[in-house]
Amino acid sequence: MKRNILTVPIQKIEAGGASVRAQDLVAVEEPLQIRLGELDVAITMRTPGHDRELALGFLYTEGLLASPDQIADVRVDDSGAVIVSLIAGLAPAIDARRFYVTSSCGICGKASIDALAASGCAMLPPGKPKLSVNLVPHFPTRLREAQAIFEHTGGLHAAGLFNIAGELLYLREDVGRHNAVDKLIGAAFLERQLPLHDHVLMLSGRISFELVQKAVTAGIPIVIAVGAPSSLAIETALRFGMTLIGFVRGSHFNVYTGGDRMIV
Amino acid sequence: MKRNILTVPIQKIEAGGASVRAQDLVAVEEPLQIRLGELDVAITMRTPGHDRELALGFLYTEGLLASPDQIADVRVDDSGAVIVSLIAGLAPAIDARRFYVTSSCGICGKASIDALAASGCAMLPPGKPKLSVNLVPHFPTRLREAQAIFEHTGGLHAAGLFNIAGELLYLREDVGRHNAVDKLIGAAFLERQLPLHDHVLMLSGRISFELVQKAVTAGIPIVIAVGAPSSLAIETALRFGMTLIGFVRGSHFNVYTGGDRMIV
Repeated sequence: MKRNILTVPIQKIEAGGASVRAQDLVAVEEPLQIRLGELDVAITMRTPGHDRELALGFLYTEGLLASPDQIADVRVDDSGAVIVSLIAGLAPAIDARRFYVTSSCGICGKASIDALAASGCAMLPPGKPKLSVNLVPHFPTRLREAQAIFEHTGGLHAAGLFNIAGELLYLREDVGRHNAVDKLIGAAFLERQLPLHDHVLMLSGRISFELVQKAVTAGIPIVIAVGAPSSLAIETALRFGMTLIGFVRGSHFNVYTGGDRMIV
Repeated sequence: MKRNILTVPIQKIEAGGASVRAQDLVAVEEPLQIRLGELDVAITMRTPGHDRELALGFLYTEGLLASPDQIADVRVDDSGAVIVSLIAGLAPAIDARRFYVTSSCGICGKASIDALAASGCAMLPPGKPKLSVNLVPHFPTRLREAQAIFEHTGGLHAAGLFNIAGELLYLREDVGRHNAVDKLIGAAFLERQLPLHDHVLMLSGRISFELVQKAVTAGIPIVIAVGAPSSLAIETALRFGMTLIGFVRGSHFNVYTGGDRMIV
């Protein structure tokens, strides 16, 4: 059975800027391929566990399965994909183009990261820019101050693009955190500011692979989040040399990767 | 300009079970279609605002645009879609099958809801089952007690399927809240328990359209969440006769729709 929690080494920053080596538990995020007969229906980024149920629930709620009677077999193949086989005579009523198979996903996390590298994403500039641990708590504070909608509805994610001095350049909010980040990167794209090698991305929530992928594509070397990163977010940050900071609570936070940019 | 916050009428339940009529602000969630030249590239569920930037950021981070120099024009058409036109001689390097166009999304929220109805989703049984307001706080408490991973990592969403007496039948956790719900529904599907007309779905986070859509498909009449619902989640719940409860804080919570199932 695949694990759903992983222990990772972190640099823990405590009050006054003291840095200690520690360990943290993070949720595993890995792609799962779902096949219906011969058809690759979808790849979803998920936490391993109950993969067959996930595939069946997805196929049912997408209207591709109506009853367990239609199923001959549900199995996990050597590559980890879930394959749902229909009984003889039944063909899936499906337009394969309806489903999401993004270029950045593969059948395992490593394949996802390799695909990102193959798509032309470059390593981030090593060791720069530098960021003082004392400045880190400023980012979430400034993001919250600037948030217009969240305070009222509790329903929106926020993403902020800062320069390395801590000035907020753009703030965007959305029900989807990936949309908030796309809005930021789109704004910088229009202003011909890419790659964003001297910038910091601040997120109000958790850090998934997809968000790190977007930041790498835009050349952002430092990502800070109020929430926790997933395992694949950490692996991707490591691979591309990104500084990933999470769980910011006042002056306490965790540096997951890229500690070489931090001034302690 | 489209609005990004909406005021909705709610039934506010306070300590001791007192019910008052009130208003709540919710984040707007609506589909946005993104076109690159003649090609429908994607539909994303987003909060209106900065739509052109969202489209450009999405196309850039997906590797479909490299520079503003490639763009002849970015405009919003009458239907609300963002259309990015490339300069003469450039064709998008894209395999249209790579992108997500789900059956349940349309160009506006109403189209999404109509598509869900057209896909065979039925109205939920009106007025039943009944649920006492005094039992509501039990669901998030029981979900938290049962959570195995979240407490350790802070990185996982949880979804619980309960019977109407408040017994937890299944608990699933995932980095993606839609996956946690698919895992629950897949488990019930395998056990031939669908439709789940006497059940309650409890969510650890916010309520998006996608989650209400999945609950409607599985026949779940009552959805409770710790977080806030989006506008489209509320509209969909209204249309299919679902009871939607959010923002549960101790014995305080909001009933957004379907108050006819509540015993005050």
